[in-house]
Amino acid sequence: MTLIARHKARESIVARYAKVRAHTEQLVLNLTTEDQCVQSMTDASPAKWHRAHTTWFFEQFVLTRFLPGYEVFDPTFAYHFNSYYDAVGPRPAQSARGSISRPGVEQITAYREHVDLAITQLLVADTGEVSEIIEVGLQHEQQHQELLVTDMLHAFAQRHDVIAIQPGWREPIGSQDETQFIHCPGGLVESGHPGNGFCFDNEIPRHRVFLEPYRLASRLVRNIEWLNFMADGGYRSPALWMSDGWAAVTNGKWSSPLYWREIDGEWFQAGPGGLVPVIGTAPVRHISWYEADAYARWSSARLPTEAEWEAAIAAPKVSEMTGHVWQWTGSAYRPYPGFRPAHGALGEYNGKFMINQMVLRGGSVATPPGHARPTYRNFFYPDRRWQFTGVRLARDV
Amino acid sequence: MTLIARHKARESIVARYAKVRAHTEQLVLNLTTEDQCVQSMTDASPAKWHRAHTTWFFEQFVLTRFLPGYEVFDPTFAYHFNSYYDAVGPRPAQSARGSISRPGVEQITAYREHVDLAITQLLVADTGEVSEIIEVGLQHEQQHQELLVTDMLHAFAQRHDVIAIQPGWREPIGSQDETQFIHCPGGLVESGHPGNGFCFDNEIPRHRVFLEPYRLASRLVRNIEWLNFMADGGYRSPALWMSDGWAAVTNGKWSSPLYWREIDGEWFQAGPGGLVPVIGTAPVRHISWYEADAYARWSSARLPTEAEWEAAIAAPKVSEMTGHVWQWTGSAYRPYPGFRPAHGALGEYNGKFMINQMVLRGGSVATPPGHARPTYRNFFYPDRRWQFTGVRLARDV
Amino acid sequence: MTLIARHKARESIVARYAKVRAHTEQLVLNLTTEDQCVQSMTDASPAKWHRAHTTWFFEQFVLTRFLPGYEVFDPTFAYHFNSYYDAVGPRPAQSARGSISRPGVEQITAYREHVDLAITQLLVADTGEVSEIIEVGLQHEQQHQELLVTDMLHAFAQRHDVIAIQPGWREPIGSQDETQFIHCPGGLVESGHPGNGFCFDNEIPRHRVFLEPYRLASRLVRNIEWLNFMADGGYRSPALWMSDGWAAVTNGKWSSPLYWREIDGEWFQAGPGGLVPVIGTAPVRHISWYEADAYARWSSARLPTEAEWEAAIAAPKVSEMTGHVWQWTGSAYRPYPGFRPAHGALGEYNGKFMINQMVLRGGSVATPPGHARPTYRNFFYPDRRWQFTGVRLARDV
Amino acid sequence: MTLIARHKARESIVARYAKVRAHTEQLVLNLTTEDQCVQSMTDASPAKWHRAHTTWFFEQFVLTRFLPGYEVFDPTFAYHFNSYYDAVGPRPAQSARGSISRPGVEQITAYREHVDLAITQLLVADTGEVSEIIEVGLQHEQQHQELLVTDMLHAFAQRHDVIAIQPGWREPIGSQDETQFIHCPGGLVESGHPGNGFCFDNEIPRHRVFLEPYRLASRLVRNIEWLNFMADGGYRSPALWMSDGWAAVTNGKWSSPLYWREIDGEWFQAGPGGLVPVIGTAPVRHISWYEADAYARWSSARLPTEAEWEAAIAAPKVSEMTGHVWQWTGSAYRPYPGFRPAHGALGEYNGKFMINQMVLRGGSVATPPGHARPTYRNFFYPDRRWQFTGVRLARDV
Repeated sequence: MTLIARHKARESIVARYAKVRAHTEQLVLNLTTEDQCVQSMTDASPAKWHRAHTTWFFEQFVLTRFLPGYEVFDPTFAYHFNSYYDAVGPRPAQSARGSISRPGVEQITAYREHVDLAITQLLVADTGEVSEIIEVGLQHEQQHQELLVTDMLHAFAQRHDVIAIQPGWREPIGSQDETQFIHCPGGLVESGHPGNGFCFDNEIPRHRVFLEPYRLASRLVRNIEWLNFMADGGYRSPALWMSDGWAAVTNGKWSSPLYWREIDGEWFQAGPGGLVPVIGTAPVRHISWYEADAYARWSSARLPTEAEWEAAIAAPKVSEMTGHVWQWTGSAYRPYPGFRPAHGALGEYNGKFMINQMVLRGGSVATPPGHARPTYRNFFYPDRRWQFTGVRLARDV
Repeated sequence: MTLIARHKARESIVARYAKVRAHTEQLVLNLTTEDQCVQSMTDASPAKWHRAHTTWFFEQFVLTRFLPGYEVFDPTFAYHFNSYYDAVGPRPAQSARGSISRPGVEQITAYREHVDLAITQLLVADTGEVSEIIEVGLQHEQQHQELLVTDMLHAFAQRHDVIAIQPGWREPIGSQDETQFIHCPGGLVESGHPGNGFCFDNEIPRHRVFLEPYRLASRLVRNIEWLNFMADGGYRSPALWMSDGWAAVTNGKWSSPLYWREIDGEWFQAGPGGLVPVIGTAPVRHISWYEADAYARWSSARLPTEAEWEAAIAAPKVSEMTGHVWQWTGSAYRPYPGFRPAHGALGEYNGKFMINQMVLRGGSVATPPGHARPTYRNFFYPDRRWQFTGVRLARDV
Repeated sequence: MTLIARHKARESIVARYAKVRAHTEQLVLNLTTEDQCVQSMTDASPAKWHRAHTTWFFEQFVLTRFLPGYEVFDPTFAYHFNSYYDAVGPRPAQSARGSISRPGVEQITAYREHVDLAITQLLVADTGEVSEIIEVGLQHEQQHQELLVTDMLHAFAQRHDVIAIQPGWREPIGSQDETQFIHCPGGLVESGHPGNGFCFDNEIPRHRVFLEPYRLASRLVRNIEWLNFMADGGYRSPALWMSDGWAAVTNGKWSSPLYWREIDGEWFQAGPGGLVPVIGTAPVRHISWYEADAYARWSSARLPTEAEWEAAIAAPKVSEMTGHVWQWTGSAYRPYPGFRPAHGALGEYNGKFMINQMVLRGGSVATPPGHARPTYRNFFYPDRRWQFTGVRLARDV
Repeated sequence: MTLIARHKARESIVARYAKVRAHTEQLVLNLTTEDQCVQSMTDASPAKWHRAHTTWFFEQFVLTRFLPGYEVFDPTFAYHFNSYYDAVGPRPAQSARGSISRPGVEQITAYREHVDLAITQLLVADTGEVSEIIEVGLQHEQQHQELLVTDMLHAFAQRHDVIAIQPGWREPIGSQDETQFIHCPGGLVESGHPGNGFCFDNEIPRHRVFLEPYRLASRLVRNIEWLNFMADGGYRSPALWMSDGWAAVTNGKWSSPLYWREIDGEWFQAGPGGLVPVIGTAPVRHISWYEADAYARWSSARLPTEAEWEAAIAAPKVSEMTGHVWQWTGSAYRPYPGFRPAHGALGEYNGKFMINQMVLRGGSVATPPGHARPTYRNFFYPDRRWQFTGVRLARDV
């Protein structure tokens, strides 16, 4: 690498680091100190915890290893803000994150600044050794940016009055085009990250998958279609559901997507902008895999596999593949052939969750720009609904 | 009532109101905004919630009824800060109090000031009509002052590092005197509030109870004695326990009082002053009724009934009757003969909890001065341990 | 004791033993082998377990101690049929009693015969030493006779078609008299067993209790009255209920007594004779303490304390004090002043349950004749409904 | 079809029907009436329920449809013995199957004879129309034969003394050969049932799958190897486990395969022959998917996918592919490309369970001879251990 190239790379990673970190702070601009402390369910974490945990990630995996003489901001933070890395040490129960009142919001802001300064120092000096792990840290922070929004939405949506996380936020409207089922030839396709640029360990190795020909819906399922499903008794017909899904419907008393409220005969949905009327043409969101699967059955269709989804990414006429909702696939989250988890604690990043969860593809309105990729594998348990999750249909030929 | 007497009464209640309200604010002086938001278990409430709920109590039961033209500070508060008054309206689940991020701490401070001003206006004008209900509100606030401390202690005691609620707080040491069992004659005694001054509805009617002669321990059980109980296998001997108590020991893996930690062979206990060594002569605290009962059995003794406790309040040589710990009695919390709950929503104050709980007498280090009385009936479920609860023994003659 | 008196006593206890033991067998006459194996909830035990456990009680507490050379029928039975005596040894979880398929019903019958023979031998030889513990065993067996009926009823009542435990069983009709509230003077009364004849340890010592004057209902609450309570929204009005009771109503979706079914607008109740129409004049049964308490509040009345109930046992005009339903009292099940549990394992018989339960008095249609006494203290948790439990009201003067 | 061929086909299906049905009865020969009633956990069903349910299957899906004038044996049985067919009607909760004391064992025997006679009549008359659904019924019955053994084993293994379901049953010993990892070429292989003979709907359509080259263990993991895993801290090392798996280890306090007991330093395992010493060379069994997966990780290996397993079925040197244990694969149980569930109620047979479960291949000692196939897809939740489940390793090339 020439000196100039190295300089440019340094410039680039420094700028990128600053930009990503700043975006996190942007997300909490409208939040009060108290808002940042709420943990409204075990799956969710407080906003301040997200801010601190992502910072700890850089401190733990970069600074203490690569910046000589670095002094940790506060040695107790390694306990408070470890998420699930058994190899690193103990930590509070996930359900107790809302109880970590100290360090407070201001101290976490100082923590962020402290780490930002140190990382910048490190990057200015040299990027060769650490740029890769810095990039992991940034990707990790972007994941938490999305979680920060979805967790905060969960907290605010519990209230009678739904607070807007982002006042003035505009609901995406979706296109008006009719849905078509686009023919895809299948065959022996390649799946997984091709190797240029960043990816997570769960996206590789790139490998071959054989697909029968199939048809993929040109767009996402819309709210207006979901209302038809509801009107047709979709939530009351066990024959449409997986056995476990029907149990979830019954136990959870589900009768609409999460965050929907019927007020005087009109449907509203809580979102980042508060409680707003459901827009018929917008892609339905906050549905579980069980609901996506039942809806597909009701539509005489099915969910695409993740390989089918990925193979159609550039097919003509296929739209809304990213930027609206994460799209449930019919694929269980399992390792690709030849999968090797990363070494050390980061090996816990993805591998140990590869059971009982379903793959989602695409990316949502809450996904930071530039974070998602066609090969990106998101994953959640099939009963979870608090993410921006939706559905695209597929059919056999 | 003469004009002067009325004026003095006004003066007195105004001053008392100010003093009690100020004490609440005193209790949160060392707490951060974030500390005030924590709800570390369903039984506990955030400090800011206590501050707001006690204020709402005055607004709901005094101002909206007795101050003409009073405008509620914020109409949504009646929803957020109702605790359990079904007659008043709906409210968040008790377990969700930690999620009420807004109103924030500052707004609650403003709420308190707003209500304080209005109450003072009301009191300056006239006290005749409202002094009684004001007094209920002040007593209610004092109860929440104690809960604020115990709830905050629960939150802080979950941490590796125990934060001090009141830095510099001194653990009570207890007297060095030997425990004696004081003979009490029993007979037909009177129990219940005699009628002068404030009491809760659960303390009346004053009524007659027949007691066999009994002996009451001159002082509370101490930590050093509890350590003997532990060393003697107290937590491992089912024969010492009630059947339900043994289930609690087993399920909760109890082997010492709550908040005790053994560090390098020495015992510490989390308290308002942080994590401090267990003082042998101090009264044991943070024990459940089950533990108190088992300890009594191990000591060839029993718990006193609440009537026995009350009848001995002025007996010579009996010490530590108040100010250290709430003392579990052998009496189930049930209504006195002739009990009538108050009218309206305040009738829910005590009456609807008169089942499945046990009576405690005395008052603790966390009880605001002047709040407890010899006839005061505190009550908790027999498995609860987060209050300042201890034990005094009794024996048959 | 003269020789003749001793002979008569022997004759008497031998005959009584035979009679009580035969009654148990009588109760299972209409049950199939398979019926005797069912455990339909953890609180209930299979009929064959009741038959074996009561037999083990004699073997464990009488034969192995007092009959020289006695050989236990099968040493594994001590494990299978111990109910809750920690001092005796381990045992299967209570919830697993339905899984003890072996020993089978026939072998248990043989076990009963084996023990009956040995007990008879022992009694013929001498009664002095063992008659008291034999009597405990018979009283114990009578308690299980009632449980056998209530447990079997629970099992059968789960079915679409309710099997009759005792085909042809006649529902008690109750008297047609109007309910009156009988004045009772109260004062310093004596409570507890007077000392002649058998009683359990929880009925003594006889002791003095001071009662204010009160009024006791001359009869039990009837089904027709309960229907009025239901029609008046009794199960939908939180103000009528204890806080814990309202939680039980909500969680259990209670809207009528247990075992009631509405079929084509008519109410039926499952009982020992199968599914039969609810008889308006019959005492209501299968209600929890919470329901009894709420009904009393709805009636502007209250439950009598156990001492009030006992003091009125011989009052004129008071009827239905026994033989219909166990009557919930307002008294928590706690030890009498001076209570001493029996020595050894039998000390676990009553004492360790003296918390969280409420006292019932009277005796029910399922109580074996001669078993109940005016001083008898039955006890269950306040949410339990599968016993023959009803309510008698009281009022202050 | 010629007359002779049809006659032979009739002969064949009649004989096969008789043989399969007789095998069920053979399995309960050593069980008492009481044994047949036990349901020791919700996942398990009583033996008599299995016998009745399989019979109801023939009555419901064959006789009431195809045998003119057939009268159901007892109309209430359709309620009691429906397992999970929503399309057919309501049924008792799965957890309440142990409470269905009537019909009794004898009546179920009569039910089986009644249905056997009717089916034979139907088959003698004509097989064309019904042979396929009869075959489904027989395959279904064979599945319940295996469940009958595993459910009964679960019940008996709870006891101190483990009753032998099949006295004299010989534990399989396994071969002494060293384990080799056999090279398999992969490529574009076909998977799924080829079309000749019976298969379930979840085995088709046969379809193409692309496999990278891989290596498959020549034999199953043995007990002696599992003991090494245990000795090496396998059950105490979170790094070896999936996150959900570690939670299962912790909550379930797992430290060995199910049914293992250490007695005086020697390991025993409960099996169909009672409690017998663990044989080192025998394939390990009664392990969950989580354990299989953790063991594979500890072995620097992985579980084979179901397609890998199937493609290697005829590979040289690969042994123990069936007849010992069901072999956990790395594949989630999802539909094959182009899957169509059967029409009507039988469409609920497999399809609605295709989520949250993992595929097992092979067949066990408890699988009826002739039931398993190379394309057979068994499936259970990853935490279940009461089936005869074991593990075969695979490795990447």
